[in-house]
Amino acid sequence: METFENPNPGRDYVIQHIAEEFTSVCPKTGHPDFGTVVLTYVPDKLCVELKDYKLYLHDYRNKGIFFEAVTNKIMDDLCAELQPRWLRIETIWKGRGGIRSVVRIEQAAPDFNGPTPPYFC
Amino acid sequence: METFENPNPGRDYVIQHIAEEFTSVCPKTGHPDFGTVVLTYVPDKLCVELKDYKLYLHDYRNKGIFFEAVTNKIMDDLCAELQPRWLRIETIWKGRGGIRSVVRIEQAAPDFNGPTPPYFC
Amino acid sequence: METFENPNPGRDYVIQHIAEEFTSVCPKTGHPDFGTVVLTYVPDKLCVELKDYKLYLHDYRNKGIFFEAVTNKIMDDLCAELQPRWLRIETIWKGRGGIRSVVRIEQAAPDFNGPTPPYFC
Amino acid sequence: METFENPNPGRDYVIQHIAEEFTSVCPKTGHPDFGTVVLTYVPDKLCVELKDYKLYLHDYRNKGIFFEAVTNKIMDDLCAELQPRWLRIETIWKGRGGIRSVVRIEQAAPDFNGPTPPYFC
Amino acid sequence: METFENPNPGRDYVIQHIAEEFTSVCPKTGHPDFGTVVLTYVPDKLCVELKDYKLYLHDYRNKGIFFEAVTNKIMDDLCAELQPRWLRIETIWKGRGGIRSVVRIEQAAPDFNGPTPPYFC
Amino acid sequence: METFENPNPGRDYVIQHIAEEFTSVCPKTGHPDFGTVVLTYVPDKLCVELKDYKLYLHDYRNKGIFFEAVTNKIMDDLCAELQPRWLRIETIWKGRGGIRSVVRIEQAAPDFNGPTPPYFC
Amino acid sequence: METFENPNPGRDYVIQHIAEEFTSVCPKTGHPDFGTVVLTYVPDKLCVELKDYKLYLHDYRNKGIFFEAVTNKIMDDLCAELQPRWLRIETIWKGRGGIRSVVRIEQAAPDFNGPTPPYFC
Amino acid sequence: METFENPNPGRDYVIQHIAEEFTSVCPKTGHPDFGTVVLTYVPDKLCVELKDYKLYLHDYRNKGIFFEAVTNKIMDDLCAELQPRWLRIETIWKGRGGIRSVVRIEQAAPDFNGPTPPYFC
Amino acid sequence: METFENPNPGRDYVIQHIAEEFTSVCPKTGHPDFGTVVLTYVPDKLCVELKDYKLYLHDYRNKGIFFEAVTNKIMDDLCAELQPRWLRIETIWKGRGGIRSVVRIEQAAPDFNGPTPPYFC
Amino acid sequence: METFENPNPGRDYVIQHIAEEFTSVCPKTGHPDFGTVVLTYVPDKLCVELKDYKLYLHDYRNKGIFFEAVTNKIMDDLCAELQPRWLRIETIWKGRGGIRSVVRIEQAAPDFNGPTPPYFC
Repeated sequence: METFENPNPGRDYVIQHIAEEFTSVCPKTGHPDFGTVVLTYVPDKLCVELKDYKLYLHDYRNKGIFFEAVTNKIMDDLCAELQPRWLRIETIWKGRGGIRSVVRIEQAAPDFNGPTPPYFC
Repeated sequence: METFENPNPGRDYVIQHIAEEFTSVCPKTGHPDFGTVVLTYVPDKLCVELKDYKLYLHDYRNKGIFFEAVTNKIMDDLCAELQPRWLRIETIWKGRGGIRSVVRIEQAAPDFNGPTPPYFC
Repeated sequence: METFENPNPGRDYVIQHIAEEFTSVCPKTGHPDFGTVVLTYVPDKLCVELKDYKLYLHDYRNKGIFFEAVTNKIMDDLCAELQPRWLRIETIWKGRGGIRSVVRIEQAAPDFNGPTPPYFC
Repeated sequence: METFENPNPGRDYVIQHIAEEFTSVCPKTGHPDFGTVVLTYVPDKLCVELKDYKLYLHDYRNKGIFFEAVTNKIMDDLCAELQPRWLRIETIWKGRGGIRSVVRIEQAAPDFNGPTPPYFC
Repeated sequence: METFENPNPGRDYVIQHIAEEFTSVCPKTGHPDFGTVVLTYVPDKLCVELKDYKLYLHDYRNKGIFFEAVTNKIMDDLCAELQPRWLRIETIWKGRGGIRSVVRIEQAAPDFNGPTPPYFC
Repeated sequence: METFENPNPGRDYVIQHIAEEFTSVCPKTGHPDFGTVVLTYVPDKLCVELKDYKLYLHDYRNKGIFFEAVTNKIMDDLCAELQPRWLRIETIWKGRGGIRSVVRIEQAAPDFNGPTPPYFC
Repeated sequence: METFENPNPGRDYVIQHIAEEFTSVCPKTGHPDFGTVVLTYVPDKLCVELKDYKLYLHDYRNKGIFFEAVTNKIMDDLCAELQPRWLRIETIWKGRGGIRSVVRIEQAAPDFNGPTPPYFC
Repeated sequence: METFENPNPGRDYVIQHIAEEFTSVCPKTGHPDFGTVVLTYVPDKLCVELKDYKLYLHDYRNKGIFFEAVTNKIMDDLCAELQPRWLRIETIWKGRGGIRSVVRIEQAAPDFNGPTPPYFC
Repeated sequence: METFENPNPGRDYVIQHIAEEFTSVCPKTGHPDFGTVVLTYVPDKLCVELKDYKLYLHDYRNKGIFFEAVTNKIMDDLCAELQPRWLRIETIWKGRGGIRSVVRIEQAAPDFNGPTPPYFC
Repeated sequence: METFENPNPGRDYVIQHIAEEFTSVCPKTGHPDFGTVVLTYVPDKLCVELKDYKLYLHDYRNKGIFFEAVTNKIMDDLCAELQPRWLRIETIWKGRGGIRSVVRIEQAAPDFNGPTPPYFC
């Protein structure tokens, strides 16, 4: 995943990218899952390049992976790449059989104590 | 109720399942009640399997049970099954006679002190 | 189904009952279906009694029946009972596997030529 | 009901009063019913005075009367008072036992052929 | 009221100006009335200049005038000024004592038979 | 007011009843007031019976009482009856003369320190 | 595509399936397109089986095809399969570069003259 | 401004009046400004009389005064009159030139430490 | 403006492109105007290429042109380019000084008599 | 950027200006970006003049600048000009390629410890 230098590393500030057209495949049924992926983070040295991040999300289009697993995976990949001060992934899934689901994971650098925004939903 | 292993027990993260098609029966009048059941939890070792959870909720379809009791019962069953770090049940009921009701119960493991999400409604 | 006399048979006017808590069972999968049943009609001699109509709809709670069939069945039962000047049934179903459905049926007495209201949805 | 002279009888134009705080009593159960009363009309010689119309609607507060009957009654009273070119009453009722209802009645003077507005709901 | 030449008199087309901040005074109580004035018209030779039309509406700020009268007055003034092929005024008033009102007037030149848009509300 | 035993007194949990069809009378003008009454509480030994609570609210239908007073009165009556761990009443009133109002009162037992839900509105 | 017999061929009635999770691929850029496919039809002898229709739509997941072409293709496939009395396909696409698009096609059997419902959007 | 005695001075509770039809005049351009004035307070000995408060707000109708100044002025007038335990004024203005504005001021008595409601918007 | 061949010229069908990020400049004040441009048409031999149409709209970014004129100009340019069976342009403008505007123009080929969709707004 | 004196420097209060018609240019693609800029601040000695602030935002219309950079730049310019007690900039961008973004930056004077409002979105 391509990154660029944080234009203002002297400040703790919040960047949010809301991808409403995420799709992957249920590994159990083979049926497609549709959802929204919300990335919210406080950058340290690096920011994620938006177009490259989009292509990264496209890569899940035909992967069989569960809701909880894909959320943890995106979390891990972005933390590895960006080394952020604080980062949260929220995945919001369209309903299946009358039940719709949300998964939310966040992580802060040990020395981060800035305020963090409320959940996306 | 079927469960599966938490894919990332090293993290405190939040899973939410919103079942908008819940129905049970009023034990007093015999009339059907309709509502939404929102399960929100921080898993420890186990996650609830979504399809099995759906079938568990279907079992209330013809049971006579009050709003407060069914909420406490779902709470107890899920806590017994999942032994979660933190868990909340919210039931949101369609109106009867011009009054609509909500019941909210939550419980944390003794050593849990992660942040918890706001109420669903 | 209980009926009562149209209080003003000298006029063509429109009565609508919107039942948002309808549920039946899919005969193929055994899973519950949830939907809204909208009855719109121009009464002739008889009107449907609201409480009895509600109980009539409750009778589908554990019946296995397809979307198209249940809509036709409610249509037939009400037309037989009320002999209305004009009547429409619309059933609006919650999504299954990413697809939600609507069925609309209407029927006029041969000599009816009043204006009719637009579809409910 | 007090009236005032149509300030422009040379034109067919439409006046609408939407009363969202109507309440009467169900003659069967004695419980209050709540609804919205929408009056739409093309005046001829007379317009209804708004404050007096409000007081007229207040008079139903403790009357036991069914949905269909009260709609026909308001219709009759206003037509008698105003002798309008065209007039429609729509009553939209809050739900009872999971079903909400609408009643719509309209009437035109024999020689009226102006266009009429769509239903309020 | 200032006007400008219709830039395309060869076509029947529709112009709409929605003024959501109209206020006048109730001549009976002296209290302010608040509403939205929607002007929709098919121009012939002239279009109304937007800024001047705004000032024209401001002139009602301290005038005592009833709902029906002010709607007819704006109608007359615009028709006199613009000589339009077709014109409609709709005034939508904030509630007073639990009742909110709408007045709608339209007028076509004798030889106009273009289609006209639906009511604004 | 009828009550029933809290089915789970070992837990602090929240019950909410939202009555959207409340009406009383303004003691000054004699005109009806319409509003929503939201009761939210953490039960101790007793819960309020829903149908009886509805009838209790109906009793205000023809009483002349101000916004602030009726909110305090419902508060006092429910606290006396239920002896709750925590209780809040919110009344939300339809507009009068362009101003709509809200009154909110809450009270906790001396030893209660559970978290409380956000305001209803 | 699997079909089943129209349970009531004696009536002209309307069936609608709204698939909000459609995705295909832009043949020019290779990027995914997301949209809603609305099928509305009056059946003659056959109805489309819902689950099979869903799988038919899934087949476009990795196909490169333009908005206009995919809408015509679904139209042709369904008409060939169902030989309906009347059928409409509407595709509603998420925005690209600030522009979102809709395509609507409908077709009636030569002898069909029933009324047809308004566009979905 | 007329006041009345707080019916329950023994409690800290919140009263809110939302006036959606406020208008004043921009001192720079002479054009009218439109907005909503939200008064939220915890009364001490006195409550503001609603009708009189409405007339007080009407007095700004033809006054030239800036957003920030009018918010501070209403604040000062109400605090002087009511001597409240806590009070907040929020003014929410309709857009001008593509920008809409909000001003929020609050003030607590020195010994007040009750909880306060969230901002109105 | 680039075009491509209508993939199905044998049918009358409707294509709609909704551009919500249109901006031009007011020739009188030099201030930017913001709006939505809705193009709806029944193609004959040619369809407009979406990306090229976007660039065409971008060309107005710094042009001084009135609401009525820009709508007529886009209409003329598209009709010249596409020679459509039927075409409508609607421009919906953000408010200026409390008034927001809409302009709607449509045109049909002499021999076109297909049905046309309702206005976008 | 023009400023004016804070009319009430003795109080900590909040001013918010929401500019929904912001546009700049993507430096990478040359395509326009559209967004909303929300300025929220607690003034010290100076307030920003609204009309001049609008012109300041217009200056970005043809500048090539990234989301993160423009947000930091507006932040820096306003802090330099106003020397506020507290200030937050939020930029909310329309979607590109299925992803929409938000950037939020805030800064407090060293001795400021007033409460601050929640994020705009």
